[in-house]
Amino acid sequence: MNVEIERKFLVKNNNFKQESYNKTYIKQGYLNSDEKRVVRVRITDTEAFITIKGKSNKKGTTRFEWEKSISVLDAQQLLLLSEPTLIEKTRFYVKKGNHTYEIDEFLGDNLGLIVAEIELNSEDENFEKPTWLGKEVTGDLKYYNSRISKHPFKNWM
Amino acid sequence: MNVEIERKFLVKNNNFKQESYNKTYIKQGYLNSDEKRVVRVRITDTEAFITIKGKSNKKGTTRFEWEKSISVLDAQQLLLLSEPTLIEKTRFYVKKGNHTYEIDEFLGDNLGLIVAEIELNSEDENFEKPTWLGKEVTGDLKYYNSRISKHPFKNWM
Repeated sequence: MNVEIERKFLVKNNNFKQESYNKTYIKQGYLNSDEKRVVRVRITDTEAFITIKGKSNKKGTTRFEWEKSISVLDAQQLLLLSEPTLIEKTRFYVKKGNHTYEIDEFLGDNLGLIVAEIELNSEDENFEKPTWLGKEVTGDLKYYNSRISKHPFKNWM
Repeated sequence: MNVEIERKFLVKNNNFKQESYNKTYIKQGYLNSDEKRVVRVRITDTEAFITIKGKSNKKGTTRFEWEKSISVLDAQQLLLLSEPTLIEKTRFYVKKGNHTYEIDEFLGDNLGLIVAEIELNSEDENFEKPTWLGKEVTGDLKYYNSRISKHPFKNWM
């Protein structure tokens, strides 16, 4: 249970993949995608979680987050109850200074969408910006995964 | 993770209280009250849980249910995110034969509403019906706690 401080960016090209030290496949669905009380079920290569998020602050940088590890079997059952549609993506991890970028390359109906996130200790903390980092989209609801699950990237044009 | 088989009844009078071997205070709220994917946070006298329920079958007797114990502190934080309004009730436990009735005496905006539930091993299992047991309301959405949280008893008249 904590408050997360995160900033989110588009990604210009695939160069982040060479810099990545790890990656995992992620499948996730929502038991609620209301921004005031998001309930997310996520399965990765090896683990599963239920995560509950509150409403973001105005800038979209901070948000209450509560997460609990659950069994992959339970998560599979809970995904069956989730709202349409599930999100699938590959998450790449890139270390830059003291920070780790998580870069999500979306699959399926969201193919073509790539988003990078960085978690900070304070809202005004400095961080290294790699050349592949694009426009900041922090706080833009369109890029919330809970929103993407209802409005997939393929319908954005 | 299992499928619950339950039947629900109104209660005619307070005689169940003398037969009760235990009771607990319950406060609960909903992170989703959609009948297809209810997400409930509950705090009792001593414990807390997050519970996820799927859609009931047509008769309202069976329902997928997944429950996980969480800390009371976490539950208090999650109740702050819940939809209006929280439900408060006293739950009494009455043993009848091989079964246990759970009788909920609602408080606050639902004062006057008393509902008994019994969990069964199969849909056609026999069970003892005490004299205080009233009309069956199994499957009546009005008596779902998730519905009551949005449409409290005081507004039913």
